[in-house]
Amino acid sequence: MRAIITLFFRRPVHQLEHDGFEVTYLNPKSDGTIAYEGIKSAIRSDTILVCLQHANNEIGTLQPVQEVGRLCRERGTYYLVDATQTVGHIPVSVKDISCDFLTLSAHKFYGPQGVGALYMRHSIKCPAFISGGDQERGRRAGTHNAAGIVGLGEAVKFCHAHMAEESTRESNLRDKIIDSVLKEIPFAVLNGHRNKRLPNNAHFSFSDINGEELVSVLDLAGVSVSMGSACTSGRMEPSHVLLAIGLTDRMASGSLRVTVGRWTTQEDIAYFLEQLKLKVNQLRAR
Amino acid sequence: MRAIITLFFRRPVHQLEHDGFEVTYLNPKSDGTIAYEGIKSAIRSDTILVCLQHANNEIGTLQPVQEVGRLCRERGTYYLVDATQTVGHIPVSVKDISCDFLTLSAHKFYGPQGVGALYMRHSIKCPAFISGGDQERGRRAGTHNAAGIVGLGEAVKFCHAHMAEESTRESNLRDKIIDSVLKEIPFAVLNGHRNKRLPNNAHFSFSDINGEELVSVLDLAGVSVSMGSACTSGRMEPSHVLLAIGLTDRMASGSLRVTVGRWTTQEDIAYFLEQLKLKVNQLRAR
Repeated sequence: MRAIITLFFRRPVHQLEHDGFEVTYLNPKSDGTIAYEGIKSAIRSDTILVCLQHANNEIGTLQPVQEVGRLCRERGTYYLVDATQTVGHIPVSVKDISCDFLTLSAHKFYGPQGVGALYMRHSIKCPAFISGGDQERGRRAGTHNAAGIVGLGEAVKFCHAHMAEESTRESNLRDKIIDSVLKEIPFAVLNGHRNKRLPNNAHFSFSDINGEELVSVLDLAGVSVSMGSACTSGRMEPSHVLLAIGLTDRMASGSLRVTVGRWTTQEDIAYFLEQLKLKVNQLRAR
Repeated sequence: MRAIITLFFRRPVHQLEHDGFEVTYLNPKSDGTIAYEGIKSAIRSDTILVCLQHANNEIGTLQPVQEVGRLCRERGTYYLVDATQTVGHIPVSVKDISCDFLTLSAHKFYGPQGVGALYMRHSIKCPAFISGGDQERGRRAGTHNAAGIVGLGEAVKFCHAHMAEESTRESNLRDKIIDSVLKEIPFAVLNGHRNKRLPNNAHFSFSDINGEELVSVLDLAGVSVSMGSACTSGRMEPSHVLLAIGLTDRMASGSLRVTVGRWTTQEDIAYFLEQLKLKVNQLRAR
């Protein structure tokens, strides 16, 4: 038995358990951050891999990936960081993080859908993910998605060239949303950490609101928001992330994820806030 | 132990053997076709899968996929056809072939690189290839390559709309190449079947010629041809396909794959034939 630690927020990795690995899941604190001490005590002598999301895809909380990286180095375990939410939005350096593996996905930073990248430390030997041809040094056989790969590269270059000002612009819009919602809508809570969060993400729960209804009525008003991640859309159960940070079923089912982007303006935010207040009031008044 | 038959021309599938499957490899006849009787006697009561290339990617030989399909139905084994070389070029029908699985790749019919399709009979239950999200009904998690998928669909539609005339046009060019080479270049042999072959493929071996040199000098003269498949480019060993159909190392190392396509003209072929004769003579005269 060899142990793998996967730090909360990940769905259960049944396949690994089926293959005979023991997987430890750690729970976050209520703001979504992980307790460093919790990881430290969970790493065993037979732990081979620690997996951590740089930022959660629902509530946007940023994790102390560098501290955990140093810990993994000290303890001699491999370290995988899922930077899907952060690359292109905030600075990400595999050197600073001290990770062995890092994953990212182009459509999260305005690149093409369906192409991503896996960073792997040069010295690491891995069996083939797809065997057959010699592509990717024999690790992943198959003709390359050439247009997608070029698109990913161009998109990340563009994001990095504009990151400083764009990140500031987006986090100002995000803060405007958070401050207004918490001030003007009763019985609303912010999920995730107030400051240690993605510059483009705000996530709330409203009591006495059905989140799916709220998303629908806002959609009809021309506002695109979601309850959570794309992976769970269409499911009726409350998000496992929201339950992990301690929300009740009732609060979790009244949740709303709001993200801003390259083309979001102050006027958009003003309109959104006006519509949100209106719709929450209407739904609660029934 | 459960047996899988993979019909020659495939590279050894070491991963399956490593996972405990017994794999039977069948050898082709010298024209590249498989002996139906050979498959029939190789299918055992514990054979779970028969794999067959619709056409070989080097020598272009077409296989009797329908007959093998009927046999697999009778014997109750699953049947996978790799139609990567044929879709878009000749009619392919999963119904006529009676296959359970069929694979194809967009860049083989002028679609985008890096996207393919797996046809799977509706009633078949398979474990996930990539687990995680619910995409592809849980069989392959991950955000779709939307542009690639649309491109694949449009490319195959275009090919089917023009297949009848394009297939005739290309096979006329192919026949012109084959007839001229066999008539005008001494010690040249055609590899694969004379008629049961892809409309766009001709494949030869020339004695006393180093195929890589021939490809290089033709490239300098503006003609793009290859020795074999992209998967084996850069390797020095003779093709496993050519050895399987009984070529000696010496003949296999003097091989040339010539393909025609949508933009190949009669003038191109005339120029190619002139250059080929010239370069073969020059290389042999050294």
